[in-house]
Amino acid sequence: MSNVIKNGTIVTADRTYKADVLIEGDKIAAIGANLSGDQVIDATGCFVMPGGIDPHTHLEMPFMGTYSSDDFESGTRAALSGGTTMVVDFCLPSPGQSLLEAIDMWSNKSTRACCDYSYHMAITWWGEQVFDEMPKVVEKGITSFKHFMAYKGALMVNDDEMLASFQRCAEIGGLPLVHAENGDVVASLQQKLLAEGNNGPEAHAYSRPPEVEGEATNRAIMIADMAGVPLYVVHTSCEQSHEAIRRARQKGMRVYGEPLVQHLVLDETEYANPDWDHAARRVMSPPFRNKQHQDSLWAGLSAGSLQVVATDHCAFTTEQKRFGVGDFTRIPNGTGGLEDRLPVLWTYGVGTGRLTMNEFVAVTSTNIAKILNMYPKKGAVVEGADADLIVWDPEATKTISAGSQQSAIDYNVFEGITVKGLPKYVLTRGEIAVDNGTVQAKPGHGQFVGREPFMAVSKALSTWKELVAPRKVERSGIPASGV
Amino acid sequence: MSNVIKNGTIVTADRTYKADVLIEGDKIAAIGANLSGDQVIDATGCFVMPGGIDPHTHLEMPFMGTYSSDDFESGTRAALSGGTTMVVDFCLPSPGQSLLEAIDMWSNKSTRACCDYSYHMAITWWGEQVFDEMPKVVEKGITSFKHFMAYKGALMVNDDEMLASFQRCAEIGGLPLVHAENGDVVASLQQKLLAEGNNGPEAHAYSRPPEVEGEATNRAIMIADMAGVPLYVVHTSCEQSHEAIRRARQKGMRVYGEPLVQHLVLDETEYANPDWDHAARRVMSPPFRNKQHQDSLWAGLSAGSLQVVATDHCAFTTEQKRFGVGDFTRIPNGTGGLEDRLPVLWTYGVGTGRLTMNEFVAVTSTNIAKILNMYPKKGAVVEGADADLIVWDPEATKTISAGSQQSAIDYNVFEGITVKGLPKYVLTRGEIAVDNGTVQAKPGHGQFVGREPFMAVSKALSTWKELVAPRKVERSGIPASGV
Amino acid sequence: MSNVIKNGTIVTADRTYKADVLIEGDKIAAIGANLSGDQVIDATGCFVMPGGIDPHTHLEMPFMGTYSSDDFESGTRAALSGGTTMVVDFCLPSPGQSLLEAIDMWSNKSTRACCDYSYHMAITWWGEQVFDEMPKVVEKGITSFKHFMAYKGALMVNDDEMLASFQRCAEIGGLPLVHAENGDVVASLQQKLLAEGNNGPEAHAYSRPPEVEGEATNRAIMIADMAGVPLYVVHTSCEQSHEAIRRARQKGMRVYGEPLVQHLVLDETEYANPDWDHAARRVMSPPFRNKQHQDSLWAGLSAGSLQVVATDHCAFTTEQKRFGVGDFTRIPNGTGGLEDRLPVLWTYGVGTGRLTMNEFVAVTSTNIAKILNMYPKKGAVVEGADADLIVWDPEATKTISAGSQQSAIDYNVFEGITVKGLPKYVLTRGEIAVDNGTVQAKPGHGQFVGREPFMAVSKALSTWKELVAPRKVERSGIPASGV
Amino acid sequence: MSNVIKNGTIVTADRTYKADVLIEGDKIAAIGANLSGDQVIDATGCFVMPGGIDPHTHLEMPFMGTYSSDDFESGTRAALSGGTTMVVDFCLPSPGQSLLEAIDMWSNKSTRACCDYSYHMAITWWGEQVFDEMPKVVEKGITSFKHFMAYKGALMVNDDEMLASFQRCAEIGGLPLVHAENGDVVASLQQKLLAEGNNGPEAHAYSRPPEVEGEATNRAIMIADMAGVPLYVVHTSCEQSHEAIRRARQKGMRVYGEPLVQHLVLDETEYANPDWDHAARRVMSPPFRNKQHQDSLWAGLSAGSLQVVATDHCAFTTEQKRFGVGDFTRIPNGTGGLEDRLPVLWTYGVGTGRLTMNEFVAVTSTNIAKILNMYPKKGAVVEGADADLIVWDPEATKTISAGSQQSAIDYNVFEGITVKGLPKYVLTRGEIAVDNGTVQAKPGHGQFVGREPFMAVSKALSTWKELVAPRKVERSGIPASGV
Ligand SMILES: [Zn+2]
Ligand SMILES: [Zn+2]
Ligand SMILES: [Zn+2]
Ligand SMILES: [Zn+2]
Ligand SMILES: [Zn+2]
Ligand SMILES: [Zn+2]
Ligand SMILES: [Zn+2]
Ligand SMILES: [Zn+2]
Repeated sequence: MSNVIKNGTIVTADRTYKADVLIEGDKIAAIGANLSGDQVIDATGCFVMPGGIDPHTHLEMPFMGTYSSDDFESGTRAALSGGTTMVVDFCLPSPGQSLLEAIDMWSNKSTRACCDYSYHMAITWWGEQVFDEMPKVVEKGITSFKHFMAYKGALMVNDDEMLASFQRCAEIGGLPLVHAENGDVVASLQQKLLAEGNNGPEAHAYSRPPEVEGEATNRAIMIADMAGVPLYVVHTSCEQSHEAIRRARQKGMRVYGEPLVQHLVLDETEYANPDWDHAARRVMSPPFRNKQHQDSLWAGLSAGSLQVVATDHCAFTTEQKRFGVGDFTRIPNGTGGLEDRLPVLWTYGVGTGRLTMNEFVAVTSTNIAKILNMYPKKGAVVEGADADLIVWDPEATKTISAGSQQSAIDYNVFEGITVKGLPKYVLTRGEIAVDNGTVQAKPGHGQFVGREPFMAVSKALSTWKELVAPRKVERSGIPASGV
Repeated sequence: MSNVIKNGTIVTADRTYKADVLIEGDKIAAIGANLSGDQVIDATGCFVMPGGIDPHTHLEMPFMGTYSSDDFESGTRAALSGGTTMVVDFCLPSPGQSLLEAIDMWSNKSTRACCDYSYHMAITWWGEQVFDEMPKVVEKGITSFKHFMAYKGALMVNDDEMLASFQRCAEIGGLPLVHAENGDVVASLQQKLLAEGNNGPEAHAYSRPPEVEGEATNRAIMIADMAGVPLYVVHTSCEQSHEAIRRARQKGMRVYGEPLVQHLVLDETEYANPDWDHAARRVMSPPFRNKQHQDSLWAGLSAGSLQVVATDHCAFTTEQKRFGVGDFTRIPNGTGGLEDRLPVLWTYGVGTGRLTMNEFVAVTSTNIAKILNMYPKKGAVVEGADADLIVWDPEATKTISAGSQQSAIDYNVFEGITVKGLPKYVLTRGEIAVDNGTVQAKPGHGQFVGREPFMAVSKALSTWKELVAPRKVERSGIPASGV
Repeated sequence: MSNVIKNGTIVTADRTYKADVLIEGDKIAAIGANLSGDQVIDATGCFVMPGGIDPHTHLEMPFMGTYSSDDFESGTRAALSGGTTMVVDFCLPSPGQSLLEAIDMWSNKSTRACCDYSYHMAITWWGEQVFDEMPKVVEKGITSFKHFMAYKGALMVNDDEMLASFQRCAEIGGLPLVHAENGDVVASLQQKLLAEGNNGPEAHAYSRPPEVEGEATNRAIMIADMAGVPLYVVHTSCEQSHEAIRRARQKGMRVYGEPLVQHLVLDETEYANPDWDHAARRVMSPPFRNKQHQDSLWAGLSAGSLQVVATDHCAFTTEQKRFGVGDFTRIPNGTGGLEDRLPVLWTYGVGTGRLTMNEFVAVTSTNIAKILNMYPKKGAVVEGADADLIVWDPEATKTISAGSQQSAIDYNVFEGITVKGLPKYVLTRGEIAVDNGTVQAKPGHGQFVGREPFMAVSKALSTWKELVAPRKVERSGIPASGV
Repeated sequence: MSNVIKNGTIVTADRTYKADVLIEGDKIAAIGANLSGDQVIDATGCFVMPGGIDPHTHLEMPFMGTYSSDDFESGTRAALSGGTTMVVDFCLPSPGQSLLEAIDMWSNKSTRACCDYSYHMAITWWGEQVFDEMPKVVEKGITSFKHFMAYKGALMVNDDEMLASFQRCAEIGGLPLVHAENGDVVASLQQKLLAEGNNGPEAHAYSRPPEVEGEATNRAIMIADMAGVPLYVVHTSCEQSHEAIRRARQKGMRVYGEPLVQHLVLDETEYANPDWDHAARRVMSPPFRNKQHQDSLWAGLSAGSLQVVATDHCAFTTEQKRFGVGDFTRIPNGTGGLEDRLPVLWTYGVGTGRLTMNEFVAVTSTNIAKILNMYPKKGAVVEGADADLIVWDPEATKTISAGSQQSAIDYNVFEGITVKGLPKYVLTRGEIAVDNGTVQAKPGHGQFVGREPFMAVSKALSTWKELVAPRKVERSGIPASGV
């Protein structure tokens, strides 16, 4: 059976034009005028765009004997309802655990996913086994490797390990990712704050100031440069981190930055809310920043120094958040956003003129598809691409509310925000998941998306690094002046 | 009659993939596997890319009673021979001359162009007539307006005029361009150098230091920001100018920079050549810079803070250059490059790993097509686009030499450089202009390419500027405290 | 008769120590323990510091047929009452007027000054006469030359004139100063705002955004660099301007920046006051900025990238301000501050820890004495220096109020601010002008302070510029390749 | 007995003037015209300046069972011969050793010092004992604490320890110093280079690129900011590190940088010398950099973003250097310079106009005296100060040669450089150590200089940090929204 999206205006990362889109099976079969198919999706007055890709989610993430509350089913349903048709989750091996075994665990969780997905592999420990397994992970189509510079005593790796892993990435064509905060300093600040009686959720923000993030970003960039490998910095939240990225790029380094939609729109005053729950629900790392940081991030998106808008969706319920009453370090880190990313970014970005529609598509879908080397299967509206598509109604509005959301959590950090611009139809590999605003996602429809290593930028960088590599000085008789 | 390019690998700004390209008439009719057509162009082992677009040429430019030596015929033949399938030339009204009349003059010159072309309109004077004619120029498809901040007493406009013109651009959806050097300062330095006996071609470079370019770039950016209009800075040659552009972009301003291939590859030591002719032939504005500036420009291209590589092709013969013996200020400014831009950039960029192939396409073709709002008619390999295409042989080599070039001038600033990577076939709107290395351009084939105003970025910027526009403070009884 | 300041702690730009100060006549005669003199000034619990120097005042400045309301008598009385013992005013020749004649006019005004003073000479027009008179001005001890880049049609000079004047400064050892705002752009924005009905005082700020100041600063710096002369930027009010200064200094350029105490403490929200008078009284150029700009300026003072805190004291009464009701461009530009500079800066700077006491002395007195080449006659507590001294009580407080001020104007922009830290005694060349808090300034006591040209920095810069000056390439037979 | 320096021109950090200097015992007794004393030192045509202070030496430093070849006697003799009248050496406890015990060891070594000296205490390990002993070290007059971020497995401390130590410094008024290079990365690069056969001295430079130093500097700055303490970065050798320092200072952070005279004058091409000994003798950390880095450092000295020029004098003989034949990691790190710092800096700084004479005094003496809180006992020409003085003959020249030096090593990295400007007389606390060019230093004359903690900048910073410290959000009923 074929679907045809008619009368819409196609918006991609590089152009805007009127055309119909014919979908056969799970692929785009044709783009052009006057196409016909078995079933017509009317896009009159709407934009037809590639489905959103959220490269940063933590679905059913293990945490203190429990899990983040959105699993692959509810999480991907939430994603689809907001126009996101693919997520990339983090596979987190336990200390000492085989990476391959961890993949199996994650594959078990994702069986009921409603949309397509892929994984980043986290390097949570280092050893010969990890070194040996990394190419096997790449063979399985997982080519991006996450490194935590924070969460001391748990996920954190040190500089040694990070350099070794980055060098390994260079060899196998992988892309390193970093959560950039100085974990030693965060841990120390946490203890200091608690000792001073600062135990509320606002102290979470105090313990992770922008300088701490900027420093780690800067350090990861240097290490990537030494390893000769590109770098992707997740959840870039502040000018300090963005500045480090810009500085690196201005030297020809290949570094990418990913602001979260939360950081673009919400600010640090949330933590000053007298309601403990309100503040604790916004606890994530890095924390929300002030308006100046937001301005920096928005400018980065239009300037191209930042490339991707994600969510770090990691939904903990109010009940889970309350583990941290009396001790902010025990508040589980994470917020939602998977469902709201596109409408919120459209409203605050396209609606204000800070982004063009094309830039909107680029930062929500196309850029990350390229960076993760799965373009144009994903992130594109071209013949042969997966039919992950949104029909976007720029006039539709709603007020965000936990009461009406798909996500399993009981609140929403964007509660009360009115968005203008919403998906009318969403297709995941050809299947309609949002139909004229009604969500009808199918658990189990989603498939794993494998990716190839050695993206073009990695290869170019290796060529350059070889060209400028240290050269031995030839000497005859050593020491020449001496003996 | 149809042509089909078979067995090649298509390289565009956003991806690399194997497919055939079918051309019918002057358009791309299909892209896919196993296409067939009347005539086969074999691209085995080659890359199929959008034809180059050089947005900065001065063909048959009037100068001191004579003309730059490449006219639209020889210039576009040179362009095609090197893989460039479109040029954008500068229409230069005389002081007081009607803009529309100037267009007519340029249209007369371009009748024998071998490839497509468009114009930028230069604002060389200011007055009510210019103000009134600007929308008419836009109606004719010329939407970009050049402003010279140098060439005092000739082309130069002052800040007042520039602001007025930029504001007019904002209203009519035009894009302002600037030649950014402080003309007052250049003129003064020229006189000082001559007075000190510094009359050789090297003094041309001394009279136009990077600071003078950086200052003007910075000033133009501020004026564009006040006018609420994007800005395109031609021939960005130095870190000072690039820094100003980066700084602006980091604030969300919409500014573009265009390094020339000459500045990327050749440096200031050329002017120290003991041969006067050698040095004089390299006299252009801005002059060549040192290696650090080159590094800055290369990094800008990969980082995205600079977008386009052009040539400012303005070819004066040795005889013409010698007008300036004994007085460097009389050496006609300009060098060639139209023919060599792509091979030289490929060799020094893709060959070294400083650029990916996709970035190469972006900076030689796609980006400028988008900036000038003629994408994907130009700059793309998509169905329906003009069949301006290159079949690029990455293994072909040659040593650049004036003796074997198409351009009418008697030297070549890249003389002796060996390039690796050359066009094997070049198509201009479906016609073969380079056939297995042999140039067979057809004078008169080229057509004018009209463009639409109000590109997406212009509209977004206007929306943002309206949102943050000054708001009047409401007061009752003025002065309230007073009477 | 001698005075001895006993039991105090001397605070200078470079150290803090306990010692008595003996004053004989108008000079410091001795510094040490257990000094005695005819009259004892008790400094127990107090700091003894060099008197403040305000290098930026406009006393009895001609304006639209009237004058700024503080003349040299009331202005210097206000200065002394707040601990400032010297002012440097701007001598403003009319267009075409002889510089020497203008000096005479200013000398006539300053006869009743209560404290010492000097002048900067403004270059308000350019011509052979100005060129010829500049060395004569220097001979009279006036070695600093002010250039207005704004006030189009009145004081403004263009780039040509500015470069010529800066080059003349280099020759005669003078120091150029600039009021840095792009006058063309300001004039255009003013007309645009008025045309849109934005005629209130807030539109004054809208017409002079930070970008306009930053641009002009950047341009002046480039011109000074071309002329090979140091540069002093008056009333640096924003990050854009400060950034340009820092960037220049990081290249070894010799550039100084002068924030005003008003800009450090007051912000743009003043213009949003519903009271027209309140807003109009704060109209000055550059206008007040936001908190981020303030942070930048404070950091500059501690980092040393900004050197001096001044006031631009130019006091217009409310009546005079009301010239501009209905047309903000007619509101006379200027505020007061001469009296409040030291207590306000102490409170917000030393009181918060943003500045050390030594830095306070440096930025209010010592640095400008050095920059204007009159150190240690002024700005120092050393034997032989002029006995311009403050005995500062760090515990004294007051709330600033127009009702109790010395200045002739009828309001105070710092109204209501409580300061902690006030002068208990102030000596001007040995005479007590503030006695235990009571002002007893003597009109006519003040003397003109002449200064020497060619300060050390100017000479060093000239040496460097000569070393790196353009060198002619030697060629035999020109063109060599040719004939 | 008294000495009087007559007919000279005194040059200090803040002024230049003609006066005689009377010395009684070890102090300056008077400064003025026509002074007389028992013995006259003729300074006609000379400058009288504060003796140089070198805050970075390693005399008789233990290394692999031997010692750096200059001990306190030969080292301080070399210092005096070149006009340096005080050194600050590094007290290096072994792992687990008591800090106080280490002081005793260093005191034993310094008994034969010819000029005054002080120590920095190195924090080479961390533990309760170190924490407890730090205040006792301060009581002994040692208020600066050095931290090595490199030399993994030996001196290196990690971020945790560094933050703890910096916080301790904040409490006790100490000043942290850092050797800033990422030790993990250096160690890894060393192994990689050796594995690739890069075992020559040039590989030492390859293993410590500027990025590695810049990163560590940036990290130390962040940690100091978190601890609320100023920071002094030793041997700042590159733009990356300087940029981090500037960026910090522009935010109001209190950070100091110390280029070495070697890095200002010598560059990386030294390591390409075909003579192994030549290259190995220049092995120090950080290694020499290129010309662009030198430009950055020079600009920093005049701009004030860098404050001090030191030497890191750590002299190993050629024989000792040869430990590293075949394995560059075993070449002992260090060069000489103590004797040459002032003449070389004068020649390349004052002689070229890059520095004024006053700036020369500031960066060689006065600034570090202030930073180490021993001003004006040291670093000043004021009454009561220690009579550590130089009579500097700006016309004297010599060609530097190991053959004629005081230092115990058998080569000189400045060999063959001709300097113009040399000390004619040098006084150390009133005793003549260089007499009309002849060195007559007295072993044992030198005394330890104790210093006070809590310099003004430290106190100001603490005030500011307290003002902006995290504040607890008051909440009633936690969680308020909840139960
Ligand atoms: Zn994270
Ligand atoms: Zn995450
Ligand atoms: Zn041009
Ligand atoms: Zn041009
Ligand atoms: Zn002004
Ligand atoms: Zn003024
Ligand atoms: Zn070191
Ligand atoms: Zn050292």
